[in-house]
Amino acid sequence: MPELQTRLTRSLGLRHPIVSAPMAFAAGGALAAAVTRAGGLGLIGGGYGDGPWIEQQFAAAQGERIGIGFITWSLATKPSLLTAALAHRPAAVMLSFGDPRPFVDEIRAAGARLVCQCQDMSHVRDAIAAGADVVVAQGAEAGGHGALRGTFSFVPEVADELAARAPGTLLLAAGGVGDGRSLAAALMLGADGVLVGTRLWASREALVAPGHHRAILETGGDGTLRTRIPDVVRQLPWPPGFTARIRRNAFTARWHGREAELEKAAAEEGPRYAQAFAAGDAEQGAVWFGEAAGLVHSIEPAGEIIERMVAEAAGLRARGQAG
Amino acid sequence: MPELQTRLTRSLGLRHPIVSAPMAFAAGGALAAAVTRAGGLGLIGGGYGDGPWIEQQFAAAQGERIGIGFITWSLATKPSLLTAALAHRPAAVMLSFGDPRPFVDEIRAAGARLVCQCQDMSHVRDAIAAGADVVVAQGAEAGGHGALRGTFSFVPEVADELAARAPGTLLLAAGGVGDGRSLAAALMLGADGVLVGTRLWASREALVAPGHHRAILETGGDGTLRTRIPDVVRQLPWPPGFTARIRRNAFTARWHGREAELEKAAAEEGPRYAQAFAAGDAEQGAVWFGEAAGLVHSIEPAGEIIERMVAEAAGLRARGQAG
Ligand SMILES: Cc1cc2nc3c(=O)[nH]c(=O)nc-3n(C[C@H](O)[C@H](O)[C@H](O)COP(=O)(O)O)c2cc1C
Ligand SMILES: Cc1cc2nc3c(=O)[nH]c(=O)nc-3n(C[C@H](O)[C@H](O)[C@H](O)COP(=O)(O)O)c2cc1C
Repeated sequence: MPELQTRLTRSLGLRHPIVSAPMAFAAGGALAAAVTRAGGLGLIGGGYGDGPWIEQQFAAAQGERIGIGFITWSLATKPSLLTAALAHRPAAVMLSFGDPRPFVDEIRAAGARLVCQCQDMSHVRDAIAAGADVVVAQGAEAGGHGALRGTFSFVPEVADELAARAPGTLLLAAGGVGDGRSLAAALMLGADGVLVGTRLWASREALVAPGHHRAILETGGDGTLRTRIPDVVRQLPWPPGFTARIRRNAFTARWHGREAELEKAAAEEGPRYAQAFAAGDAEQGAVWFGEAAGLVHSIEPAGEIIERMVAEAAGLRARGQAG
Repeated sequence: MPELQTRLTRSLGLRHPIVSAPMAFAAGGALAAAVTRAGGLGLIGGGYGDGPWIEQQFAAAQGERIGIGFITWSLATKPSLLTAALAHRPAAVMLSFGDPRPFVDEIRAAGARLVCQCQDMSHVRDAIAAGADVVVAQGAEAGGHGALRGTFSFVPEVADELAARAPGTLLLAAGGVGDGRSLAAALMLGADGVLVGTRLWASREALVAPGHHRAILETGGDGTLRTRIPDVVRQLPWPPGFTARIRRNAFTARWHGREAELEKAAAEEGPRYAQAFAAGDAEQGAVWFGEAAGLVHSIEPAGEIIERMVAEAAGLRARGQAG
């Protein structure tokens, strides 16, 4: 197995500089454990905070060393979920989309690493102030919620900020990492590793409906957009500035740009959306993946995805000298 | 001087895999010639097609081997500009934002390379059909006009498409290439070289007002946005789907999101805009640069920018093996 050792692998004791994204609903214990077994670090998607579901997923991870991620503004409404999660001694807790500070002391006291996902430079400054161990620079091509900065120029700008103000803080690149080329590129941009969502959503272990998995195989990177409509239809109080990247489909064609009308229709459309999502309908609900869809050509075991990514990146780096 | 030889350098006979972007108004003959002298290939920005200005810029290039770029939908209204430009025997003609096919035969007959800048996969398929020698995969973080795909995932997807359907076609990455890290990363993503706009806009040779140059030094990558307002105020008939990335300032705060009102006020606001732009006012007009602003810390001669970029990239690639 080729080696890609970085500050991240050394600091967290990993074989590969790959962390799986804590994807709400999709990243359960089986995926997290598979990623850890493959040499990365797997994270459960704590999402909007369903306590029993989180317990189930820790159980499904069968004692593998994993972490968990929370949507910070949502966690703030149910902080006891953090306490419950920390009882499982996660290796890391990732916080995203909100102020991390209220949770820092408890995470530290439990001995977990604090990972803060950032969408712009103000978030990076907040993460540094909170004493993050790891900053994730998330670009707009990412699947799921995010904001506007492009991965390609955001990552080196964050690397410079960390080098100047918090040189011990590690940096992960997120948003569009779909294969070994993007892993190698992320390391060139100054990242210590990558956070992978979409590519691992398209794995056997992800909790994804077959209809949704089929949809990503038919969709290129042009076939997604950023929109508020899944949050509007679910009446989720997302703070301004964040949108969700999802597949373009009948649902987005109908409602994107008509957010005010959807808001009024939410009492009817909400249950319809929930049913379509549960049924794995790839047209009438949201299908959650990012622009890396253009790099996904099969649904495989997470371990194989990670091995190929690392082998390809290591090969590219080794050939780097030859030009 | 370190070497970064690729298919692009071999095919075009360059020392470095760097092409400068044909930036309307900013990329004149002095910048193009400086880029070529430094070992890349410089392109004049043909922009909206001012014949005498283009003649002046070819003269300013003093016989260096350079190319020119046109905004395709605009060129279609004044095709004689292409004929005039080809009389200068440019090494390459870049077409962007429109259907390249009407111009292909004339460009080929003059012995120039055809470069097609693409913003999504449908453009890439059109460029392949047109027989492009070089495809530029332009991501949304780019300064100036562009569209939605992120550089980081778009470039490898385009690389795969070219490998499958037009393996002889060369690939440049554009959008966010601001230093040696991004050059090295672009090569890892599968590009044969890079097209650099913003970073060379911030050079001594660029035709940029001092007030605008000062503005980029104070602006990070978060300080830009994509908007239609400069096109609305200038009453330019840009096709749907394209927006301009410019600096956030008083002009964008006032008008972005109020496009319909600006359209009505264009008779008044148009001259005001033109005057502010000409005066180098960084607040009342558009200031044209992209997210790579976060990687720009000084205004230097173009040759120094290119040398540092190449030295840094070559160093990163050489160290790649060590991890
Ligand atoms: C299906 C899906 C669900 C996601 N849910 C969350 C989430 O609950 N919390 C979070 O911090 N990020 C979430 N994300 C974003 C990821 O953390 C990560 O930034 C993103 O997946 C990286 O980009 P990529 O999808 O191109 O790999 C989600 C992403 C996807 C694809
Ligand atoms: C000031 C400025 C003007 C531009 N004008 C044009 C143009 O006239 N035609 C064109 O094809 N691209 C134009 N572009 C886009 C560039 O071709 C290129 O895609 C972009 O600059 C690359 O991204 P970067 O700015 O991050 O380097 C312009 C870019 C800038 C910054």
